[in-house]
Amino acid sequence: MVEGMVMERYTAEELAGVYRAIRERRDVRSGFLPNSLPEDLVLRLLRSAHQAPSVGFMQPWRFIVIRSRETRQAIFEIFQDARAQEHQTYCEDRAELYSRLTLQGILTAPLNICVVCDCESSRGHSLGRHTMPETALYSAVCAIQNLWIAARAEGVGLGWVSIIDPERAKRVLKIPRSVTLVGYFCIGYVEAFAPEPDLERAGWERRLPLEEVLRSETFDQAWRGIDPQ
Amino acid sequence: MVEGMVMERYTAEELAGVYRAIRERRDVRSGFLPNSLPEDLVLRLLRSAHQAPSVGFMQPWRFIVIRSRETRQAIFEIFQDARAQEHQTYCEDRAELYSRLTLQGILTAPLNICVVCDCESSRGHSLGRHTMPETALYSAVCAIQNLWIAARAEGVGLGWVSIIDPERAKRVLKIPRSVTLVGYFCIGYVEAFAPEPDLERAGWERRLPLEEVLRSETFDQAWRGIDPQ
Repeated sequence: MVEGMVMERYTAEELAGVYRAIRERRDVRSGFLPNSLPEDLVLRLLRSAHQAPSVGFMQPWRFIVIRSRETRQAIFEIFQDARAQEHQTYCEDRAELYSRLTLQGILTAPLNICVVCDCESSRGHSLGRHTMPETALYSAVCAIQNLWIAARAEGVGLGWVSIIDPERAKRVLKIPRSVTLVGYFCIGYVEAFAPEPDLERAGWERRLPLEEVLRSETFDQAWRGIDPQ
Repeated sequence: MVEGMVMERYTAEELAGVYRAIRERRDVRSGFLPNSLPEDLVLRLLRSAHQAPSVGFMQPWRFIVIRSRETRQAIFEIFQDARAQEHQTYCEDRAELYSRLTLQGILTAPLNICVVCDCESSRGHSLGRHTMPETALYSAVCAIQNLWIAARAEGVGLGWVSIIDPERAKRVLKIPRSVTLVGYFCIGYVEAFAPEPDLERAGWERRLPLEEVLRSETFDQAWRGIDPQ
């Protein structure tokens, strides 16, 4: 047993807090309050992100905190182009439904964060990456999910903006070609959180019951038939 | 405001529970107790995973819960081969250090879970994936991090085994070629959690201070020089 081992069980309320934050976390794209986030709160959230697991203890994530209106405007324009292109891929009712979705809060949230991953870093000495090099990127995603859960518990909404051309966004943020933009986020206080995901409420996609995605021992070939709404 | 909006702030203890689970989560590869995990606990953990965010509300993750000794033995052999190969890439002191690391608990933990991602599923109608198709995989990683944090709060250790050839493991688990094996995990009760990551304690890699990975407005070109220990 290593010195300093942590043995105390979580209290019922601590445990409930964990399950509550996981359950009530939402992808927030609207309803942001204009109040800026206190610096110590932003640091608490990013410290949680930085406590994520990483392959080989590589810690390959890098966080860029963006407040500049000019930068956010440039990213917003990249979003608008991507959204217009994506919109064109849908027909009739679904195109109409798509046009009504709010898909980002880049300018309405007081803060944006870009999470990038330096997959070429030699930190971690490649441990675990000989077989699964993608785990460097996955480590950065674990950091994002930590950030998201901590933010929810603090009453802070976070939205993941994936409708952007990452290469164009990298040029705006001066990110080198060999570094991967993993995610771009809009963040801010909100008055309340929606009871279910926006896309579920809007009728974009139905929720799968847990039982449909859970099997014992082997992959279920019938899974390939899980169809969209 | 949507009906049923969640407005209540988290209590100090709920919030502390969230930060505690994030901070005290460890990648656990040893010290598993032989007790099997109650079925309702396993379902609670997987329900948390299933509450993860997903691009387009795609929910592309599929969970395979593995208890069979024969299957775990087959995966263990795949690990041993990968470990021997990775070991050969290190020289002298680092090879010696590598040989002393415990890198999995496939057979010593009572439960294994494999998380796969069906990136070809048409669920979610490709929303957000025209620009960033990798977000399907990232959604599955968010599910993994939810599982990991909930497990920690329940006193359950989880270890991510990335030193396996994923294609060989897929054949053992009958996973189709077009489905991605995202992560393979060993899970079980532990008596205590280590105060810091195993790889930090073993001297494999140093911990980066948060300040080293955090910048404002743009990428810091000096980041490329963050070197390993």
